[in-house]
Parts: sequence; C-alpha cells; structure tokens
Amino acid sequence: MNQTDTMQAVVLNGHGGVEVLELKTVPMPQPEAAKIRIRISTSGINRADLLQRIGRYPVPAGWPEDILGMECSGVVDALGPGVKQWKVGDPVMGILGGGGYAQYVNTDASCVVSIPENLGLKEAGAIPEVFMTAFDAIVLQMSLSRKETLLIHAVGSGVGTAALQIGKVMGVKTIGTSRSAHKLDKAKAYGLDHAILADDKWSETVLDVTDGYGADVILDLVGGPYLEGNQKAIAHKGRHIVVGVPGGVSGTIDLRAMMGKRVTLRGTVLRARSLQEKVELTESFEKDILPFLEQGSISPVVEKIFSPNEVGKAHSMMAANENFGKLLIDWE
Amino acid sequence: MNQTDTMQAVVLNGHGGVEVLELKTVPMPQPEAAKIRIRISTSGINRADLLQRIGRYPVPAGWPEDILGMECSGVVDALGPGVKQWKVGDPVMGILGGGGYAQYVNTDASCVVSIPENLGLKEAGAIPEVFMTAFDAIVLQMSLSRKETLLIHAVGSGVGTAALQIGKVMGVKTIGTSRSAHKLDKAKAYGLDHAILADDKWSETVLDVTDGYGADVILDLVGGPYLEGNQKAIAHKGRHIVVGVPGGVSGTIDLRAMMGKRVTLRGTVLRARSLQEKVELTESFEKDILPFLEQGSISPVVEKIFSPNEVGKAHSMMAANENFGKLLIDWE
Repeated sequence: MNQTDTMQAVVLNGHGGVEVLELKTVPMPQPEAAKIRIRISTSGINRADLLQRIGRYPVPAGWPEDILGMECSGVVDALGPGVKQWKVGDPVMGILGGGGYAQYVNTDASCVVSIPENLGLKEAGAIPEVFMTAFDAIVLQMSLSRKETLLIHAVGSGVGTAALQIGKVMGVKTIGTSRSAHKLDKAKAYGLDHAILADDKWSETVLDVTDGYGADVILDLVGGPYLEGNQKAIAHKGRHIVVGVPGGVSGTIDLRAMMGKRVTLRGTVLRARSLQEKVELTESFEKDILPFLEQGSISPVVEKIFSPNEVGKAHSMMAANENFGKLLIDWE
Repeated sequence: MNQTDTMQAVVLNGHGGVEVLELKTVPMPQPEAAKIRIRISTSGINRADLLQRIGRYPVPAGWPEDILGMECSGVVDALGPGVKQWKVGDPVMGILGGGGYAQYVNTDASCVVSIPENLGLKEAGAIPEVFMTAFDAIVLQMSLSRKETLLIHAVGSGVGTAALQIGKVMGVKTIGTSRSAHKLDKAKAYGLDHAILADDKWSETVLDVTDGYGADVILDLVGGPYLEGNQKAIAHKGRHIVVGVPGGVSGTIDLRAMMGKRVTLRGTVLRARSLQEKVELTESFEKDILPFLEQGSISPVVEKIFSPNEVGKAHSMMAANENFGKLLIDWE
C-alpha cells in the first residue's frame, strides 16, 4: 500500500496542441467499492487520446475528465471494499475509461486480467486496448472463422498489429494495407500473408490475391477514403467493421451493392460501453486471447517507450503515423 | 395429376416496358427428384419483377429465364421422385426463384409450407415473399426483440404491411413512413403506432415520438434518399437493414456517427440465396410466423387481383406506388 496521497500525472491544461499536456502533481485516487487502485507500470497511447486532447472525444461518466489514458499495466496497489479476486502486488492490465497517464489509477476489479508470467510488466501496457479492440471487432462482433480471409487496413497500427496476430493464430488468410512499404515489411515478419501498398488500386489487388473472392472480414482503421474500395474488395456475405476513421469520417455507399453481396457494415467503439459490457469483453479476452499471450504465439508490439515528460513527442509521433505498433509511457 | 402437357404463362418477350409481357402457351414443367409441381392459384407481383422485366435483375440458376414470379399459392399437382412429405392436392405456398407467372411451376418440396385452413387459396399467394422477407430481415437478421422500436419505410408496401403485422404480434412499438397520407391511414387500421408522412422532417419526427431515443431496427424499402435521415433516427446499437432501393441506390454515410452509436447496416436479398438457406428460412417461417396466420392475428393484405392478361396493368400500378399491400395474378 502506497502511503503518499499525491501522484504524478499528465494533465490536460485545456484543449489543443501537445502544449496542453502538463506533467504535474495531483491527488492520488482512493479505490471505492468493487474497485482497485493500480500502480501503473506503463500506459498505452491511443489515437482517441489525440482526439480527446483537442476536445473531440467525450470522456465517459465516472472517469477523470482531465487525465488521458485508456489502458495500463501495473500492480494492484490498493483494494476497495468488497474486492476479493485480487491482492496487493498482483500484476494486472486492463482497459480504462480514462486516467491512464498517471502513476496510479482506479478501475473496476472485474475489468483487469492477470499479466502472464512470461511477459514483462512494461510491455504488457501495450496489450489491453488494441488486442481487446481487435478481438472484439473481428471475432466477437464479425464472427471471423477459420478458412476466412481478413483484410486489415493500417496493418502497422496498434490495433492492426494485434488483429494480424489474432488472425494468424486463428489460421485465417491475412491481407494488410499500409501507405508505408517499411511497415508492410515489418508486418510480414509477423506473418502477414499479403502485404498491399495502399495506392489507388489496393482493392483490385485484394481481389487478385483472393482469386476474385474478396475479404470476408474487413477491419477498418481508416474510414471514408477507403469506403469505395472496401465495397469492391468485400466478399459475398462479408462483414466490414469500422473502429477508426482518421482518414475521413464519411463517404458514398452503394446500398444496392450491399444488397447484392449481403454485406454488413458496422461502426464500433469500446470506451463508451457500459461496465457490464466491458466486464464481459474482459472475460472473453481472458478466455480466448490470454492463452496465446502466455504461449508467446501472440505478443505485444512496442515501437517506443516514452518518459512522462515526453508525452507530447509521443502524440506527435502517432499523429504522423510513424509508429509500428504501440507507444507507451513509462511510470516506473 | 394434370394430363395435359402445356400451360398458360406470362412470358418475357425480350426486356423493356410492360409490352414485353406476353400471355402464351408453353410446355408444362415436369417435376424432377425432390421437387413438386404446383398448380398455381395466385402468384404475387414483386418489385423485383419490374426490374427483371427491364433486364436489371439476374435470374438465379435453375429457374425459368423468361417467366417472372417469385412466389405463389396453389395445390400440389405432381410429385417428383423421392418426395414423401406432400401428396397431390395439398394446398401449399412458397417463394420461388422464378416461374410464378404461370398455371404451373416446379419448386423444391422443402421450400413450401401448408396453407392454413382459415385462409383462402387465392389470398395465400400474397404471403410468401413479403412475410418471409420481413420476418427474415427484422427478426432473424436484425434480432428485433420485444420492447424495441421498429421503423418501417414504405409501410404501405407489401413487405411494409407484412413487417407491420409481425411487429404488432411481437409487441414492439411500430413507426411507419409513407409519402401517401392515404396509405398511412390504412396502415393505422393495421395497428401502426406512429404514422409519419415522409416529408423532409421525418427523421426528427421519429426522434420526437420516441422521446429522442430513435428506432432500434429500421426496415428500409427506400434506399439512398433516406440514408441521412436514417442515421439521425437510428437508436444506439440500432440495426438498419436494406431490402429495396427503389428511391435511389446510394448515399453519403457518416462512419463516425455509426461508430458513436455502434450502428449496424446490412443489405439483404432472398432470391439469390442457396437452396439450403431458403429451406432454413422456410422452416423458421413455418415455426414462427405460420401460427399467427392460422390464428388470424396476421393476415395477407391484398390490394387487387388481376387476370393473367392484365399483368402489364399490375406492373404499372406497382411502378406508380398505387398499391397498399399486394397485387396478385389469378390463375384459376
């Protein structure tokens, strides 16, 4: 149990550029009933953090308004009343509604999982948000199944590299796009079957490498500009799930083509979900994905670890799409 | 067993206007293994027939290329080898891949159901396509459940009136739009809870009558022009299914809005499905919807019955959106 009552955190001083990110001393949170306090090892940086920083991502109720951060790894530091499943010192990781850019955070005791022994505390901070997002999107929601083909846009991103590894352990055919040949090379090292440079012919290339069949599931981390191509590249009864739209929020959709191929298009988001939904996802993740992390057949992909006073630099790097995999903040 | 070897049918003499519909004498089909021949009482007219007539709807393999008609009622007239579940004279109805505009048609013995005793043979021809389409779309695919709200566009159409009645027996709140006040009045007589004239404010009215909540399931029989309104009117975790696009095939979609509300959009079509899928749908329909037809809590909605030499007139009436419910061809 930590005896001090303050902590270091990167606090939003208004909304705007990276200059609003301010490392300062703030009160340490005290865990309420059914919650635990985590002493954070690392916290992951996500694209939604950049949107929240400029004031374009609402914070779910019950989470810090002024501290970014949607995931962390660390050790259990204190137990709220009624918490039985953890003890102080347990290594845990989980998604957060906010508050991750700090030395300590409170979260629901049912929204974290144990960190497998083969993984370091620090690298584990790269796991929760992207692996749960990818798993939830392609497996739980879009029912990707063995023998199907998975198309991942922005395959070098955090969620992209997670989806690629999940696809590989499932034994599906994986196709990935990126605007960077360098990232595609790195993705191939993770087993990507077909690496496609995102030029203006990528959708035809997807059809070429699938003998005209197309992709059964599309994990879309780009949005509007790829919509037309996705409609061409998707297979009969294909499912297209949108988890991010950094490329553009809207596009033209051909509903008749969707009817002809019986296509499903869905938008999804984790952060705004109810506690109950987050608990269910955490449990499914623990059952279906954690074993692969324990075996080492899936592993966190970390591009760089930053100190708390370099978070602005990390945001700039993500905004410039320079990272392959995750950027982390080190709180130890 | 009918002993003649010819029949009357409305045959496509090329593609084009209603003048290509020609009533003539053609060979009677002989049922192959696992098939039955039906002596048709009535066959329903569907909007897809109008598209097929002008050459814009491909006929699935194994069905007549030149005889329209996707559904019928009638009696079993002959059994193909191996058919055990029917006997000659049984009253049946079912969806067809084509060939319904005729005195006789062959179909798979597993793709028809018995006509309930309380229903007339003729009116039963108004049931298969629209009730199976509506049931499949809103219940089987979009998982509409009690306490939810169903928005039906073109509520006065064949599929619209079927969906309305299915919604009523499920106990959901029903909202319907139409460009015709007259059709909305008729729909109210079938229990429509909220009738909304499809002016340029219909989506706001949907939000008004749901206290801002929106529609959980949207059954879309219009398409592109309503896409923007549908995105406003859909509820959190809402499901929007497109079964027809006579109003326009495409529109602009806001993917970020879909993410925020976690919306699902799907296009669907019955006719192009595999036999296996059609058999499964027929079985589900028999189990879940037929009992309501037997009780009379759901009933076919027939606008008008035409003689075989008036099919052109029937097509024109449907093209002008003048029908409330179904138009049928009488072969008896």
